[in-house]
Amino acid sequence: MNKKQIGKQSVKFKHPPYIRGAASIVGSKEAEGPYGEYFDEVESDPTAGKDSWEAAEGKLQERAAELAISKAGCKKSDIRYIVAGDLLGQLMASSFGLMNLNIPMFGVYGACSTMGESIAIASMIAEGGFADNVLALTSSHFASAEKQFRFPNGYGTQRPKAATWTVTGSGAVVISSSCITDSTPGSFSSDNLPSKELLAEKNKVHIKGITTGKIIDYGIKDSMNMGACMAPAAGDVIVQHFIDFGMSPQQYDKIITGDLGKVGKDILLDIVKSKGYDISENYMDCGIEIYGEDQNVQAGGSGCGCSGTMLTGYILKMLQSGEWKRVLFVPTGALLSQVSFNEGDSVPGIAHAVLLERGTI
Amino acid sequence: MNKKQIGKQSVKFKHPPYIRGAASIVGSKEAEGPYGEYFDEVESDPTAGKDSWEAAEGKLQERAAELAISKAGCKKSDIRYIVAGDLLGQLMASSFGLMNLNIPMFGVYGACSTMGESIAIASMIAEGGFADNVLALTSSHFASAEKQFRFPNGYGTQRPKAATWTVTGSGAVVISSSCITDSTPGSFSSDNLPSKELLAEKNKVHIKGITTGKIIDYGIKDSMNMGACMAPAAGDVIVQHFIDFGMSPQQYDKIITGDLGKVGKDILLDIVKSKGYDISENYMDCGIEIYGEDQNVQAGGSGCGCSGTMLTGYILKMLQSGEWKRVLFVPTGALLSQVSFNEGDSVPGIAHAVLLERGTI
Repeated sequence: MNKKQIGKQSVKFKHPPYIRGAASIVGSKEAEGPYGEYFDEVESDPTAGKDSWEAAEGKLQERAAELAISKAGCKKSDIRYIVAGDLLGQLMASSFGLMNLNIPMFGVYGACSTMGESIAIASMIAEGGFADNVLALTSSHFASAEKQFRFPNGYGTQRPKAATWTVTGSGAVVISSSCITDSTPGSFSSDNLPSKELLAEKNKVHIKGITTGKIIDYGIKDSMNMGACMAPAAGDVIVQHFIDFGMSPQQYDKIITGDLGKVGKDILLDIVKSKGYDISENYMDCGIEIYGEDQNVQAGGSGCGCSGTMLTGYILKMLQSGEWKRVLFVPTGALLSQVSFNEGDSVPGIAHAVLLERGTI
Repeated sequence: MNKKQIGKQSVKFKHPPYIRGAASIVGSKEAEGPYGEYFDEVESDPTAGKDSWEAAEGKLQERAAELAISKAGCKKSDIRYIVAGDLLGQLMASSFGLMNLNIPMFGVYGACSTMGESIAIASMIAEGGFADNVLALTSSHFASAEKQFRFPNGYGTQRPKAATWTVTGSGAVVISSSCITDSTPGSFSSDNLPSKELLAEKNKVHIKGITTGKIIDYGIKDSMNMGACMAPAAGDVIVQHFIDFGMSPQQYDKIITGDLGKVGKDILLDIVKSKGYDISENYMDCGIEIYGEDQNVQAGGSGCGCSGTMLTGYILKMLQSGEWKRVLFVPTGALLSQVSFNEGDSVPGIAHAVLLERGTI
């Protein structure tokens, strides 16, 4: 057996799968933000032509899925599995939105870390030889999330400064198995590919490895400060990633968390620093980036769709263009439910790290 | 690359992973049923010493997990991943129940098909070389499910004959990678194992393959008749399994669905027959079996814990003893949420098939 596990909780792929196609779709508010031009599609109707917020979110997933499949140059029948999830109870957006694709499906839930979880599982399926093409996707919708987790919007509840704004959008990637091998981080090789094909293969964005997170609970109960709830989990998985891969922060062009927001960012940088790593120079958070200062979103954006759309809209384009070569993508999730909140439970966090690389570094 | 995909939606493992340890824990009602003696532990306190139904369900998961790890002869630190889920919104039982295990976690949701989904993903992780030992588990709890999906129990709502009773219980398995190879169904071989060790390896219960289900929606909206909602998905994946593996129903000792109940059973047998297969001779449904005729459960048992505890309590023991040699285990899920029900949506189904074999057939 080819063992691919390294360190305590990471995998380094021998044949790193690659991102064959990616698509993003967002709502109006996200389109008006600083990254608006990068997203593939904008849905300006909050209900996306459907009768409910949940159905609207499902529609966003369906459109992102179809666009990612098309951009990958695939037909639906080329996709062997879907790995998908969302924030809603019983994954309502994924279950109803993806039904018509008629593809075998694994539903996953990692709160807003779902894009990291779905990519991790899809990558193992592709690299393990179980599928040629796997679709990994997620979504969130401001209104379906508010309805699920918080107050009826009509109450006009005030939002504290640590609160975040749930992104309306969906991001989807087609992850495909690769024939090239990777012996050490930063170098690809192949015994049997002609040099031109090898170069083309090398220049794709590959998933070189994953570091899977544990549930981390610091006992924080403030559902309006999810950044603080998630930062410990993000710090834990990022530091473990460095240890498992024997890498230092300076070896990454960017280290990008999902939706910690302004409050969570400060906590994360402190946690990571206390463990001997300084990531402040190349750190970025999708939640802080996706909206502008003038968009009145308090600490930033959040939701599965936040890191999902920033990955497929912006991050992958920066990698594809060669602007960045190596990125650690770390979607972050707050394991919160209506019931756990009402029962006075804490909000544990989880985060999953995905090592993305383009070409030979 | 070693391709392991066969047919349209199946995987046949080259090195079939095996079930290294399994554990079941149930509530009083399940212990009083016809399979009571098979379950490992009985928790007679409906709240399991906790303050809420959800925390009680989480406690069942934690205990099943710890027992399965111990029965596998493992320490917690030997388990590389948890793949777990439950019926509750945002997987509340798994998130809170498994936190203290301190193991990297993938949360999954497939409604009551979750035991099939978690075993499928865990098996691919183990066989793909990504982990030596993976814990797959699920749970349900009568009271937490009623609270999540239906009426406050205090209302005393009448239960129609097609309704099912959510099982209180959790089932957990440790799935481990194997060094023996499988070239054709029914035969194991090894180039380098001594005959005694090979025989011991062969006699374990192996996961020989999986067939992953699609979401199937026949438009049924009756949440009190989940058997009818799930039967089409079960029929679809069972027939596809036969086609992909080139097998006939007679080649299985048992074909076992999760929780179709009495109504769903009849529909399933009809659907499968209409596609040219007769499984009536060796068919069994965990939901029909788990409670006795005198236990007032209408059409049978349901919930993730139904197939989870019947697998770990009874089915695996029948395989380990050699009573059965080959079983197709097909947990079935109804993709229902409080919100989808209130919005008048249909109840789509999904089912995942797992091919279990002991020894050389």
